[in-house]
Amino acid sequence: MQCDTVWKGARLATMAGTGLGAVAHGLIAARDGVILYAGPADAAPRLEAARVVDCGGRWITPGLIDCHTHLVHGGDRAAEFEMRLDGASYEEIARAGGGIVSTMRATRAASEDALVASALPRLDALIAEGATTVEVKSGYGLDRETELRMLRAARRLGRERRVHIATTYLGAHALPPEYAGDPDGYVAMLCDEALAEVAALGLADAVDAFCEGIGFTPAQTERIFAAAARHGLPVKLHAEQLSNLSGAALAARHGALSADHLEFLDEAGIAAMAAAGTVATLLPGAFYFVRETQLPPIAQLRAAGVPIALATDCNPGTSPLTSLLLVMNMGATLFRLTVAECLAGVTRNAARALGLGDRGTLEAGKRCDLAIWDVERPAELVYRMGFNPLHARIWSGQ
Amino acid sequence: MQCDTVWKGARLATMAGTGLGAVAHGLIAARDGVILYAGPADAAPRLEAARVVDCGGRWITPGLIDCHTHLVHGGDRAAEFEMRLDGASYEEIARAGGGIVSTMRATRAASEDALVASALPRLDALIAEGATTVEVKSGYGLDRETELRMLRAARRLGRERRVHIATTYLGAHALPPEYAGDPDGYVAMLCDEALAEVAALGLADAVDAFCEGIGFTPAQTERIFAAAARHGLPVKLHAEQLSNLSGAALAARHGALSADHLEFLDEAGIAAMAAAGTVATLLPGAFYFVRETQLPPIAQLRAAGVPIALATDCNPGTSPLTSLLLVMNMGATLFRLTVAECLAGVTRNAARALGLGDRGTLEAGKRCDLAIWDVERPAELVYRMGFNPLHARIWSGQ
Ligand SMILES: [Zn+2]
Ligand SMILES: [Zn+2]
Repeated sequence: MQCDTVWKGARLATMAGTGLGAVAHGLIAARDGVILYAGPADAAPRLEAARVVDCGGRWITPGLIDCHTHLVHGGDRAAEFEMRLDGASYEEIARAGGGIVSTMRATRAASEDALVASALPRLDALIAEGATTVEVKSGYGLDRETELRMLRAARRLGRERRVHIATTYLGAHALPPEYAGDPDGYVAMLCDEALAEVAALGLADAVDAFCEGIGFTPAQTERIFAAAARHGLPVKLHAEQLSNLSGAALAARHGALSADHLEFLDEAGIAAMAAAGTVATLLPGAFYFVRETQLPPIAQLRAAGVPIALATDCNPGTSPLTSLLLVMNMGATLFRLTVAECLAGVTRNAARALGLGDRGTLEAGKRCDLAIWDVERPAELVYRMGFNPLHARIWSGQ
Repeated sequence: MQCDTVWKGARLATMAGTGLGAVAHGLIAARDGVILYAGPADAAPRLEAARVVDCGGRWITPGLIDCHTHLVHGGDRAAEFEMRLDGASYEEIARAGGGIVSTMRATRAASEDALVASALPRLDALIAEGATTVEVKSGYGLDRETELRMLRAARRLGRERRVHIATTYLGAHALPPEYAGDPDGYVAMLCDEALAEVAALGLADAVDAFCEGIGFTPAQTERIFAAAARHGLPVKLHAEQLSNLSGAALAARHGALSADHLEFLDEAGIAAMAAAGTVATLLPGAFYFVRETQLPPIAQLRAAGVPIALATDCNPGTSPLTSLLLVMNMGATLFRLTVAECLAGVTRNAARALGLGDRGTLEAGKRCDLAIWDVERPAELVYRMGFNPLHARIWSGQ
């Protein structure tokens, strides 16, 4: 079999099937950016490779996937963070111009170049730890022009770096001041105008919303989902983060790729997600950063067979986090996920949360996105904190 | 004034005095590795510099100091971590050879070269984030030969890299199996033989012990402190981590540099530490990793004016952490320390916890150990998670 590259002398966590899919003496062969073979060396077909890489016993996992980020945004909220530690109330912070509105203002004021420039160091931090696919949402512009600019900036990140960027339109992240008191008017504008434009320009791969007391109602969310369907865009949802509005069940009814956060998810929501195959994307960085105490219903999700993804939720207000290794450690430490669950959360199930069936496992036919690690066992990737053992990152076979 | 280097166009967090000691338009001048001037540019003396570095408005802090680590050790405990997530009990883990004994065995089996080689990537992770001084303890050998080997390996780290290593002899970390049932015999051996040898060889800068129900009693600790005093070595103590044995007060009575952990510290201990000037070294990584819920008495420490340091406690069992930036984030998020307290914890107060009066602030006469950061405000160093904005690290003026 003719191929471009063979990685030999490797141990594999293929992440195929349900667990780690561990292979002690493994080999991967790729052609044209696609895996031809991944498995035990002694079961491999005869290979003629233009290049052979000896991995010296290192572990290979699929390239990591961050399936929920707000990586593109103007400014940061470090000053607000500092004020809060100094004892300021939310009111005082709001009066000082803090909160999501401050990020909206900074994002509106930023050019596309500025948005790209400020997002690149964050993206580079993810890439340095083996990320090969990163989702990026809009949602800090909340007006036509800035939302499009955020999505364009996100697309540009994928040209500036060797990484796949999946974009998500999150116009319904918060109510912009221009529509104060008229959330239905804003949602109507999103459904009747904005979504059509985003879809026509091909700027979004999916549509998301924030269904919450301080966000949008289930009825408004449903209108957005219906509009997304009209434009052929898959949906996902920020659901059950602060309270239970049955957003996850609503998302599942609309065939959502994922419902995200889920601290207040109930049994009905779990059953609906399981039935629809909707991924539960858990965001332990936000849980940790805001000192949440309500845990997502891990045991019930596990029992119901709902696939669990983990993501950084990288955002300036509640999760200024740019490390998928740390996300895995938090998944294990805070949520008691197993090592295999943590790794599946940033590979197989993260791919599924993005509707990307071509990646997330090491299997013939999948994209050859690899992370090669200087570790003795995959558990080390979850166990350590603030340590990056990445040896090499292969994106699409290169 | 003649000097080797001037760093100009900088913003400074001098950490002198009590807060950040912020300087908006700052300058640092150094000669022979020592700071000649650090402060406002317009108040600087006339300087003739061999080299001028324009910092482009970046922030400079003192080089970071990790004042409590177990960086040198054999093996890791990732397999044990994995077992625990899979639901194994402590008994099952012990039966599978886990726990501190497994680290003792791996450390005893490792050559000095192997100990250095395995510690270097951990040290490099700290250095990459601006660490210029790192404390390293013995305590996983628990026999004469291995304890000396650990200390020699620690000293070697300071020759392999441009970083100052402060060594601490922690023979009283746990009871070795050879002395099972005879802790007093072990302590007698430490006091009568081991400490003399360590002191004679100049291998330790301080002496530490683990005063705890599962460690050593206050009476045993006191004997070790007395022996350390006979050899002219300052002391510090792992105290009040799991229960209150009044170890911190004992340490304070012996003029300890620091008492460390302190989750179960009481008012009497706080008063004793305040009176003695003993630093409270808090270890949020261990607090997080073992999912402790008992918080150290931050407000009372603050009210009593006890200096608070923060450290990684880098160790394979309860804090496999190699990031002082993450330590600061955990200090703020988990312990509600302010930004200035977090920064003082890894600079000014960490230096004090090591008895190193020559560093930890940007002031004339101090070592020129600097960390130069690509941030807009010092709060960013505490606020972000898994992101390293270090621009440059200057060790002893170089
Ligand atoms: Zn989000
Ligand atoms: Zn310790």
